Amino acid sequence: MSDSTVLRYALVAVAFFCIGALVALAAAPLLAGSPPGEEDTCRETLYQVSTIDALLQGVYDGSMTFDELAEHGDFGIGCGDRLDGELIGVDGDWYLIRVDGRVYPVDGDATTPFAAATFFDTDITVAVEEPMNLTALQSRVESELPSENLFYALRVDGTFPRVVTRSVPAQEKPYPRLVDVTANQTVFTLENVTGTAVGFWTPELAEGVNVPGYHLHFITADRTAGGHVLDIVVPADSIVQVDTTANFTMVLPTSGDFLTVDLSGDLSQDLEAVE
Amino acid sequence: MSDSTVLRYALVAVAFFCIGALVALAAAPLLAGSPPGEEDTCRETLYQVSTIDALLQGVYDGSMTFDELAEHGDFGIGCGDRLDGELIGVDGDWYLIRVDGRVYPVDGDATTPFAAATFFDTDITVAVEEPMNLTALQSRVESELPSENLFYALRVDGTFPRVVTRSVPAQEKPYPRLVDVTANQTVFTLENVTGTAVGFWTPELAEGVNVPGYHLHFITADRTAGGHVLDIVVPADSIVQVDTTANFTMVLPTSGDFLTVDLSGDLSQDLEAVE
Repeated sequence: MSDSTVLRYALVAVAFFCIGALVALAAAPLLAGSPPGEEDTCRETLYQVSTIDALLQGVYDGSMTFDELAEHGDFGIGCGDRLDGELIGVDGDWYLIRVDGRVYPVDGDATTPFAAATFFDTDITVAVEEPMNLTALQSRVESELPSENLFYALRVDGTFPRVVTRSVPAQEKPYPRLVDVTANQTVFTLENVTGTAVGFWTPELAEGVNVPGYHLHFITADRTAGGHVLDIVVPADSIVQVDTTANFTMVLPTSGDFLTVDLSGDLSQDLEAVE
Repeated sequence: MSDSTVLRYALVAVAFFCIGALVALAAAPLLAGSPPGEEDTCRETLYQVSTIDALLQGVYDGSMTFDELAEHGDFGIGCGDRLDGELIGVDGDWYLIRVDGRVYPVDGDATTPFAAATFFDTDITVAVEEPMNLTALQSRVESELPSENLFYALRVDGTFPRVVTRSVPAQEKPYPRLVDVTANQTVFTLENVTGTAVGFWTPELAEGVNVPGYHLHFITADRTAGGHVLDIVVPADSIVQVDTTANFTMVLPTSGDFLTVDLSGDLSQDLEAVE
């Protein structure tokens, strides 16, 4: 072969080597997927920022961005930085319901001082045949849980005769205790409203860490109202979807007020007052 | 160009496309590494199987294999299936110290009912200038912790004047409570022994979930003795290495006795008796 022919072959070889490499690198993530088991574990994990006892004692500065929280769930509840709004995540969209009663999509760079999230996959459905208030609903669902020692995510979609919610205003330092903030909460009574209740059932073993029993937030289907659920009446023939989450991950703040707050006491009376 | 020339170019092109793709696929894992932050998060996580209160109440059937536990840490403590031995993990090797006082490398397929693990990275070193017993050592280290609200892994390597350890025999169903098992523990007194103490400091916020304060196990450098630490005397000029772990993951058993055990009570008196 002449020199020019060799050069042409070499150029073709180098060009297609590079094209092959680029195609393979582009395709590699699709071929690889997640490591075995990792994706499932993540989906079955309740992922939590800080602890409820820290929040009860006024640790209101956000410690994790909403963008980072959303990497660990498409569903959840919590609150905004400085308590500025009740947080709700449903179907991958995250919102704050502020004290004006309006719904605001979260800013991904903004932070939360307390939140819990998971990827919602329905494991159990509980049929609610009769209309029920919150207390009756809680008993009905509890009777269907496979164990009182696991964590569960819950959602109820429907048109509800009555939902009573609350939100609280943004706080300023020095932060008051949560029980003093909720004493001045703003209450919203929504009637014949279509939307979704989102929340968790936490076992007693996590007392101090999260809220034992139920903790629900609500958002309307048109994303115009909602908040922390104080009461809800579910209509006949409602379906409660339950996701069993046996894995629990807690990310504790490594700076700020969390480091020095006294978390050794029993704050269950405070918790009862704020819920 | 002639047909045969085109064919030769095409063959060269296809061959080098494939070579490029193969080289790129082989290199991809090296280029990619772990997703941003994921490796660090995993290394800074205390990973726990079940809860201490479940163990105190006799939930002794293993729920996770040692192979799976070792994916989440190279360092840790716990116990064997049916309480058959005190577990210790150091530098990636995991052992059970059985009631005969001997050290057995774990069988990766065997299971643990309760364990805690992390990847040990030293964040803080505490210099212990004077000889100290366990109580004095604990106060000395606590004074150097950046917060009482985080989890810490601790290790001390050295030649110790005295280490008092215990182990317990394998249990049979119906399982007795842990406080009744440790009432019949076997105690080993090791003198002038070279080895490593391995364990955790747990914040009060995790009461019921793990052991608040210190929980240490010990193994000799020649891997012939060890156990759950009841007392230890550290010599002058010891170094305590501390790894701050602000992330906590708990994997709860989804079958067996765990599902029905009553975890609503306060078992701190039981815990004091067994530790």
